[in-house]
Order: sequence, then C-alpha cells, then structure tokens
Amino acid sequence: MPWLVLVVPAYYGVPMRDAYYDQLDAVIDELVTMTHEVGDAVGQATRALLEADAEIAEQVISHDEHIDSERDRIEELAFELLALQQPVAGDLRMLVAALRMVSDLERMGDLSVHVAKIARLRVPEVAIPDVMLPTIRRMAEVAQEMVGKVENVIADRDVDAAMALERCDEEMDQLRRSSFRQMLSDDWAHGVEPAVDIALLGRYYERIADHAVSLARRVVFLVTGQHPAALDA
Amino acid sequence: MPWLVLVVPAYYGVPMRDAYYDQLDAVIDELVTMTHEVGDAVGQATRALLEADAEIAEQVISHDEHIDSERDRIEELAFELLALQQPVAGDLRMLVAALRMVSDLERMGDLSVHVAKIARLRVPEVAIPDVMLPTIRRMAEVAQEMVGKVENVIADRDVDAAMALERCDEEMDQLRRSSFRQMLSDDWAHGVEPAVDIALLGRYYERIADHAVSLARRVVFLVTGQHPAALDA
Repeated sequence: MPWLVLVVPAYYGVPMRDAYYDQLDAVIDELVTMTHEVGDAVGQATRALLEADAEIAEQVISHDEHIDSERDRIEELAFELLALQQPVAGDLRMLVAALRMVSDLERMGDLSVHVAKIARLRVPEVAIPDVMLPTIRRMAEVAQEMVGKVENVIADRDVDAAMALERCDEEMDQLRRSSFRQMLSDDWAHGVEPAVDIALLGRYYERIADHAVSLARRVVFLVTGQHPAALDA
Repeated sequence: MPWLVLVVPAYYGVPMRDAYYDQLDAVIDELVTMTHEVGDAVGQATRALLEADAEIAEQVISHDEHIDSERDRIEELAFELLALQQPVAGDLRMLVAALRMVSDLERMGDLSVHVAKIARLRVPEVAIPDVMLPTIRRMAEVAQEMVGKVENVIADRDVDAAMALERCDEEMDQLRRSSFRQMLSDDWAHGVEPAVDIALLGRYYERIADHAVSLARRVVFLVTGQHPAALDA
C-alpha cells in the first residue's frame, strides 16, 4: 500500500494548536485578573463608605471604566476563539462560561460603584449610623472575602472551594435580616435617610455575594459538567 | 469529463439543515415566549403590590420556577446547537446572545418575585402610602411597557424599536429620583418601613428596566454587528 506524504504549512500543525491553548489559558488568566480588580473595587468602595472618603469614592467610580474595558477584552477574545477555532466539548463549555462570567464580574463592578456613590452622597458624614456599623462592616467583609475566594476558585478550578462559597452566602442573608430588624425596631432613632441608604447598601453587598456564588457555580459546571445542586444531592 | 454520482444518507442533506434552522428559530421563539412570561410576572407582581393581594403574590413567587425551567430549556437548546452544529458568524453570534439574554430574563423574573415578596410581607396593608402610589404605579408601568416592547424587538429583530428603549429608561431614572426627594423631604410622615420598601421597589423596577435595555442592546448587536453606542455616534 502506497503512502501519501502530505506537506502542509506549519501553521496547520502544532504551533497553531499551541497558540489556541495559550489563548484559552489567557481567557482564564484575564478572568482571574478581572476578579481581582473587582475585589479591589469592593474593598475600596467599602473604605470610602466607612471613612466617608470622597476621593476614594471617585477613584472607584472612575475605575469602573477600566473594569468595563477588561470585560470587552475578554468578550472579544472568547468570541474570537469561538468563531475561528470552532471548539468542541470542554473548550466550548469553557468559552461560553467565560462570556457569562464576565457579565457577573462587570455587574459586581457596577455594584461597587453604587456603594461608592452612596458614600460620596453623604460626605463629610459617614452614611451609616454608629449602631449599624458592625453589621454593614461585616456585610462588606463577607462580600469581599467571597470575591477573594472566587478568584482562587477560578484560578485553580477548585470545585470544593466553589461548593463552600454557598455557605458564606447564608451569613450574608442573616446580616441582611438583622439590619432590617434594627431599622424597623422602635429604637431606631436615625430617621429615613440612613435607613434607605442601609437598605440599598445591604442589597448591593448581597448582590455582590450572589454574583460570587454564581461565578463559583459556573466553575463547578465547567469542571464537572454538572450543576452544583446535582452534586449536593 | 465523467460525473461522480454521490449517494449520501438523507440526513446529511437538506433535511438536516432544515432541522438546524428550525432549531435556531425555536431559540428565538422560546426567548419571545419567555419575555412574554416575564412581562406577565412583572404585571402580576405589581397588581399584588398595589392591591395587597397575597394570593397573586404567591402565584408570582411559585411561577418563577416555571421561568427558571424555561431558561434551562433555552440554555440546553442553544448549547446543543453550539456543540453539535458548530455554527459560524451570525448564527454563532445569535446563540451566544441567546445564552446571555436568558440570563437577563431569568433575573427579571427574580426581580418580580422580590416585588411580590414585599407585597406579601405587608398584606393586608398596601406597602405603599397613598402619596407615593402615583410614582410607584408609573415606575411599574414603565417597566412593564419596556418588557412588552422588548418582546416585539426580539420577535421582529427591530433595531429602531430597540434603540428607542433607552429613552424609556430615562423616565425610570426621573421617577426614582423623585421618589427619593419625596421620602427624604420634611413632609414625609410615613416613617422608615415604607421608605425602605419604596427604595427597594424602585431599585427592582429600575433593574427590570435595565435588563430590558440590555436585551434590546443585544438584539441591536445581533442584527447590525455593532454596539448601540457606535450606531448612535
């Protein structure tokens, strides 16, 4: 039987597949970087809030453009890979997940901006009355810890750590309920304005936490091919 | 020159391509159906709120499972098409957009549930003091109108109508600002609880409107290949 010798250009061979895998890795790396930046935004917004620091609030607000352009970059990269490389199975799942993860991250950036805007609105006062500071401070800590954890979850594709993130969300729920109890009790002597601020701040931190859980769930699905609820059962 | 007659199985030919296009159409049809259901959820949640109707509130809350399973169905269909048919260019863009549009729609369903839960919490009272009813009612109308419009935008891939949706969003911003002015004025005699409810309700309706704009923008990108901002410029 005769052999057919094919001479093909080098870019059809190994170098091109390598470039492809490099680009897939780059998508994950960029997601990790973006998560880190979002974590910084949450932390800085909280600092602006608790210290009534207008300058830091402004920085968070103006830095959001940078987070948005990070999203654009990851979207373009993922979409280019989808369109040009026609990935299948796991790679396809990863790129589609990446496109949805940038949406979560971009929203977390927006929510940090909302926190910063409440801080800025009340400067030179601190928006939160002293009695409510421990609750709000803890909410902010939980949110920021969750963003930090999800950064590692994405970097290491760590399913166990991803599953554990749901439990942090429960503390957030409790903190939120406790903030309502305080504001709606007869002892509340701080009037409407801080109550409105606290209700919205609680919502923003809760949503940041929700998005962190959503990111973690996407990583679980990515690695195992199953939704977290199925693995829990 | 001799002719080569190829006999291929029928499913490699026209019938399979037809099935593919039918499935692409089915994705759009399901998105339109889901948008319609979300519009109903917004309308019913508002009715529960304005009429302090616990039964309707319960219906909205329990129906959300149905919206979630609609999302699962569209996700599976779109992902199957991506994985098995390896679509390129416009079809690929459409399927990726569809996967992101279901996320918007699912969130709009969740936000309707949040509105219904506030309604339920205050039954038999109406959560909103009379003085604030016109503002909240108009917010709800704007949100529901926007969902209705975006349903047509998706069904007809109507770029002009999509671009017009941003303008409805401006009325929502104004209503929200006006609600804050009322609550924070010295005339506010209704205390903290309704103020907290109104701040959150305003946020929920605003987010429903934001998601409608986001859906419209995805349709613009889908049809024109450009982001709305680029077309506006």
